[in-house]
Amino acid sequence: MFILLVYDIGEKRVNKALKICRQYLDWVQNSVFEGELTKAGLETLKKRLGKIMNKEEDSVRIYKLRSEDYLTMEILGIDKKQVADDGIL
Amino acid sequence: MFILLVYDIGEKRVNKALKICRQYLDWVQNSVFEGELTKAGLETLKKRLGKIMNKEEDSVRIYKLRSEDYLTMEILGIDKKQVADDGIL
Repeated sequence: MFILLVYDIGEKRVNKALKICRQYLDWVQNSVFEGELTKAGLETLKKRLGKIMNKEEDSVRIYKLRSEDYLTMEILGIDKKQVADDGIL
Repeated sequence: MFILLVYDIGEKRVNKALKICRQYLDWVQNSVFEGELTKAGLETLKKRLGKIMNKEEDSVRIYKLRSEDYLTMEILGIDKKQVADDGIL
């Protein structure tokens, strides 16, 4: 399934969250990740994030779609993923 | 159509972007907005954001779905929208 993950995590924990999310999904913009994951893969990601998060302060929104076909996406301004991939960021 | 908008906008401009987006969509988390919009509504929102953005620095990702039915959403940690609605934030 296609996953879009957006987090709002405290400064002390956000680098750990970034490292974990990058192992499962593509970083596309500050705090935003996209990609295909199996159910099992998502459960593992959630468990690992759960261990480093402060559940009273931090928030992770996980949007799930059966397929990316249901989604169209448009960018205004720069594509930070592209810029990062080109090694400019 | 259902819209999920995520922005990554420079500090000097982000308050303006927040005010504009809140007129069209629900704020759900830092830099994240959701809601139903018509094509015309989305075009107006895009035009207004385009006027305040620095297109070389800022990035707005707009995810569009024909219907919210294609999407399921899960939250880890707190629901910042709920917290804001309860006037706690």
